[in-house]
Amino acid sequence: MDRSHITMAQGAGGEAMQGLIKEVILKALATDTGSPVQLTDLDDSSVVGDVVFTTDAHTVKPLFFPGGDIGMLSVCGTINDVSVLGAKPEALSLAMVVEEGFSADDLERALTSAGETAKAAGVPIVTGDTKVVEKGAIDKLVMVTSAFGYRHPKLDENFERVHITRQTKKQWLTDSNLGEGDVIISSGYLGDHGIALLSFREGYGFKTPLESDTAALNGLMDTIINVGGVVAAKDPTRGGLANTLNEWAEKSGIGVHVMEEDIPIRQGVRSACELLGLDPLEIGNEGKVIVAVVEEAAEEVLAAMRSHPNGKDAAIIGRTDASLKGVALETEVGSLRVMDPPIGDPIPRIC
Amino acid sequence: MDRSHITMAQGAGGEAMQGLIKEVILKALATDTGSPVQLTDLDDSSVVGDVVFTTDAHTVKPLFFPGGDIGMLSVCGTINDVSVLGAKPEALSLAMVVEEGFSADDLERALTSAGETAKAAGVPIVTGDTKVVEKGAIDKLVMVTSAFGYRHPKLDENFERVHITRQTKKQWLTDSNLGEGDVIISSGYLGDHGIALLSFREGYGFKTPLESDTAALNGLMDTIINVGGVVAAKDPTRGGLANTLNEWAEKSGIGVHVMEEDIPIRQGVRSACELLGLDPLEIGNEGKVIVAVVEEAAEEVLAAMRSHPNGKDAAIIGRTDASLKGVALETEVGSLRVMDPPIGDPIPRIC
Repeated sequence: MDRSHITMAQGAGGEAMQGLIKEVILKALATDTGSPVQLTDLDDSSVVGDVVFTTDAHTVKPLFFPGGDIGMLSVCGTINDVSVLGAKPEALSLAMVVEEGFSADDLERALTSAGETAKAAGVPIVTGDTKVVEKGAIDKLVMVTSAFGYRHPKLDENFERVHITRQTKKQWLTDSNLGEGDVIISSGYLGDHGIALLSFREGYGFKTPLESDTAALNGLMDTIINVGGVVAAKDPTRGGLANTLNEWAEKSGIGVHVMEEDIPIRQGVRSACELLGLDPLEIGNEGKVIVAVVEEAAEEVLAAMRSHPNGKDAAIIGRTDASLKGVALETEVGSLRVMDPPIGDPIPRIC
Repeated sequence: MDRSHITMAQGAGGEAMQGLIKEVILKALATDTGSPVQLTDLDDSSVVGDVVFTTDAHTVKPLFFPGGDIGMLSVCGTINDVSVLGAKPEALSLAMVVEEGFSADDLERALTSAGETAKAAGVPIVTGDTKVVEKGAIDKLVMVTSAFGYRHPKLDENFERVHITRQTKKQWLTDSNLGEGDVIISSGYLGDHGIALLSFREGYGFKTPLESDTAALNGLMDTIINVGGVVAAKDPTRGGLANTLNEWAEKSGIGVHVMEEDIPIRQGVRSACELLGLDPLEIGNEGKVIVAVVEEAAEEVLAAMRSHPNGKDAAIIGRTDASLKGVALETEVGSLRVMDPPIGDPIPRIC
């Protein structure tokens, strides 16, 4: 890692970012709290006693885009990080940094969207802070949300269905929980958010207009935890599916075998990616979750997902495979290739 | 309020900010959660069930200043907001937005300071997020901290000492709690942070170099809650003492009478303010707390404060007075003048 200056790639959710996080951030901040999920686990949220706690900074550009806006994104992203660990989000905070001269109407529009999204998801915004800085000190508006929540009341039952002894710590839906024979499910189409935002921002005007998938996933997570048998869950934001599966493989110490033809990707996303030389599996999503489920519960979890509006296009996309290391993608012609974790960020400032 | 564009004054903690908050932010976000301290109360933190929750965005400039830096400030400010409501902070989150090209050494320095401050205060940073944005999209570094905590175990006993019936809701150290006869105490010298930062930033080079007072106040708050009789507490950050007392007077519906000669202000701060035409009572502090205490506990709370390193210069500065409306300052020559809430911010970007 180049230690002299921070680069865009270091904020991108890929390998370069891991360097920054491990060499600088964890070294400076980490304290062993004795918790089963703490800062050093680099999971979606942390556990402190009975509480699950998380935070997210949102620097999306532009602030308003097809299918969402910074307010909606800020609320959903943080609700999702609490939910995918196996908790029920209880309340949100919202801190803003606003550029002097920013349109008051746009601020109101973003805030109204945040408020409505929070209400619809049943997670109120209870505390906040606002700073206004001089022109040029920030690009219009940054929103930072945090949330806390409590362990899902059915999470113990969910793990009882797992019938495995490999988890030794108090169980949460962590990145390190995968084991032999787990089935990997995507809750729906991947790549919509990043490509919709990119094509809108750059004015590509693709034939099929794409919309961001931004959505709060606490309802969907509730549905599948009630079924039981879920081992891990992660929203594939920065770095997309490639990042999610590589984190799982590395932290769980087990390979993942994914079938390319089973991964739901819209034709519009596929075409845009071909045109722009992007890999749809590295594109960030904001309303999708990837889950790992023990084999005997997979079909039932899949059916439950499909019964929920946020999971109607869910599909089984792969399995763990202890004979592999890392993530292998079986292409549509039957060859296996390594799915590396993304190094940088193919599309900056999408969240 | 000018609705077309956001102004610096609207982020300044004074009257203009109240307009933005009430006309735009609360309208968009507020939900009645039934909690005794919620978003609409605009207190330092909010209460959700047994949890106290708060957030703060830090845009201080420069990032490193005499007596502190953005990392230390971010940790202390948020610990203080939880503590002054009567809770024990349990854990912190830290989200950062970093400008591409920012010095990796400076980032490490700020983070190390945040980590050390958090450890010293006994409140670990357990979760975080990092975004890197392109050059010009942010002025170097913004840090946003959130924290949650639990009701101080002695808070009920603290209120038992109050022996008053005016609190009708589950009691916290809220802005609306003051009543007839309460004694107002400052934990120490006011104005140090803002003036130290301003003079360093602008290179004034005053004869007596000032240092920021940035400090975590959870220990001091613990000390005085253990004594009991504390009615309200607030850290006088943006808008300073003038803002704190006016919020109390307005929300509690009672006047406050302050003795100018009793307010601890260092000679260096006083001189700098005279030179620059600033009012030290409107200058933000980052390691002080103003408390309101029932009369019979005042001397004991004062003594307890003075026994703590963060309260050694504590002083009684005034009393509530039901015959007054708002805040009255009795000057050193004996005349009474209205202490208005500040309108804008005399010194931007000090926190």
